[in-house]
Amino acid sequence: MYIGIDIGGTTIKIGIVDEKGEIIYRDSTLTKVELGYEKVKDDLIDLINKAIKLSKSKGYDIKSIGIGVPGVTDPNSDYVVYATNLKWRNAPLGKDLKSTYDIPIYIDNDATVAGIAESVKGITKGYKNSVFLTLGTGVGSGIIINNKVYSGSHNKGSEIGHIIVGENFYDCNCGNNGCLETFASATAISKYTHKLINEGYNDEEFMDALKSNDNIIDTKLVFELAKKGNKLALKSVERMTDYLAIGLANIINLIDPDIIAIGGGVSKAGEYLIEKINKKIINYVIFKEGEITQISLSQLGNEAGIIGAALISEYK
Amino acid sequence: MYIGIDIGGTTIKIGIVDEKGEIIYRDSTLTKVELGYEKVKDDLIDLINKAIKLSKSKGYDIKSIGIGVPGVTDPNSDYVVYATNLKWRNAPLGKDLKSTYDIPIYIDNDATVAGIAESVKGITKGYKNSVFLTLGTGVGSGIIINNKVYSGSHNKGSEIGHIIVGENFYDCNCGNNGCLETFASATAISKYTHKLINEGYNDEEFMDALKSNDNIIDTKLVFELAKKGNKLALKSVERMTDYLAIGLANIINLIDPDIIAIGGGVSKAGEYLIEKINKKIINYVIFKEGEITQISLSQLGNEAGIIGAALISEYK
Repeated sequence: MYIGIDIGGTTIKIGIVDEKGEIIYRDSTLTKVELGYEKVKDDLIDLINKAIKLSKSKGYDIKSIGIGVPGVTDPNSDYVVYATNLKWRNAPLGKDLKSTYDIPIYIDNDATVAGIAESVKGITKGYKNSVFLTLGTGVGSGIIINNKVYSGSHNKGSEIGHIIVGENFYDCNCGNNGCLETFASATAISKYTHKLINEGYNDEEFMDALKSNDNIIDTKLVFELAKKGNKLALKSVERMTDYLAIGLANIINLIDPDIIAIGGGVSKAGEYLIEKINKKIINYVIFKEGEITQISLSQLGNEAGIIGAALISEYK
Repeated sequence: MYIGIDIGGTTIKIGIVDEKGEIIYRDSTLTKVELGYEKVKDDLIDLINKAIKLSKSKGYDIKSIGIGVPGVTDPNSDYVVYATNLKWRNAPLGKDLKSTYDIPIYIDNDATVAGIAESVKGITKGYKNSVFLTLGTGVGSGIIINNKVYSGSHNKGSEIGHIIVGENFYDCNCGNNGCLETFASATAISKYTHKLINEGYNDEEFMDALKSNDNIIDTKLVFELAKKGNKLALKSVERMTDYLAIGLANIINLIDPDIIAIGGGVSKAGEYLIEKINKKIINYVIFKEGEITQISLSQLGNEAGIIGAALISEYK
């Protein structure tokens, strides 16, 4: 048995998980971000203590405690180097937990953790080499090579959101121009659609739908209208999928995984998105003959964080 | 002991190589490309037979025969799928050799083989994760992850020359626009410099030097003039290194190797090239703090092909 923890900006979720990725106990608490790292850590320790107590009463042997965080960790899982949504910088979470428990502690980025979960019981299960890409506010990713998490020699790899794939009309949060994130995230879709409207692209159907959506341009609205053939929405979706196809082909031309799983809010566009990508990606893949990397929707939802975190130790 | 063979467009080189990468016997013959695959294969078998005969007389135990080819092989080393300079397509080289010899046969791309050689006794020796990039007429590459060659799930990875890094004024041979190869190869430097001149960029110093170079714009000329501060040459070198830095940062942000070794004709520009890249690359690497991937010139010259080919079996 394993303990898996998913620390998000609003909720901390914990679970006791078996080796097949089944959650057999779950608990949660709110993430009190505003009260600072120490308070969040104390709440976390309370949750872990409860889970360990239960494990003891049931006779479970806990092999490891794994934690997914929305940020960057050091390779030894001692520190969370930074986690913007938690307002953490160099938070000694691993160090603190290692000094509290005799059980091995693993901490990793939430996209990597979700990638592990897909590999345990999701769409990438059974594949040796896979990439998980989450398209949300930003673009996160996790790479699995030879059935192990691959984060590079200095834990700086797997930042697919920041590979440069072209030139864009706005800069990325990281300071560069042309990052995949600025073309393929939910934020990117919204910004580009805004730009078209601001430049005078006039589409009555779109503007009517926008009004009914509280004047908010989000991915759901844009994809729903694109599916109906709305021209403005389609223009935005075509551009997004053009660059996403380039980004995915860059991954394929470089590391050629068995499969790339697409998750995150934007993936709710479903098979419509996958079909568009597949049509475009073949143009950019250098070796087009024979079998190529499969592009699929991820399968796991909210529980991926707990499952993947629980099983980090098996993927290290 | 190992037999290593480097099949180039003009010469086939063979060597008996020890486990440290020392060549203790060498031979060669011209590659009779125009006479077709069968003739080249027969000449190759003659070379191998001579090497095996010598090995027997000296009491060497040959563990494997490895071959580097300027093209793409299938994962089982049965076929050379294509090799443009040899005019081969689906040449059954591995199949033919496997039916001729009782010794294991390995065939791989020449850039991958050169990457192995650097790892055996060159600049990437001792590093677990490395990338070798050869900047010549095109851009080739070899990836080593966890001390093994990494070519992906369908042998289609490690095509760094064809990752897309921007938009360019001419299309790549592969049919796409924006491939790293069209910015960072010797061909790319020449084409861009030509373009500047054709567009009326007038530089007397450059034009004088060009005349003394038989009116040929090559990498050597451009870099030599850039080092002297010539404006036209510098403009070309700055653009090339801008995009090369983006390409290298894409590799780092994705797979974060210990080291990237730069070889091929363009690398003769030496430390001047490395310094320029290093200054630019840090802008594009997402995690700038702490240790990052080292960028270095490759160390081995002409013999890399024999050494790397000989030791393919140790990297599979």
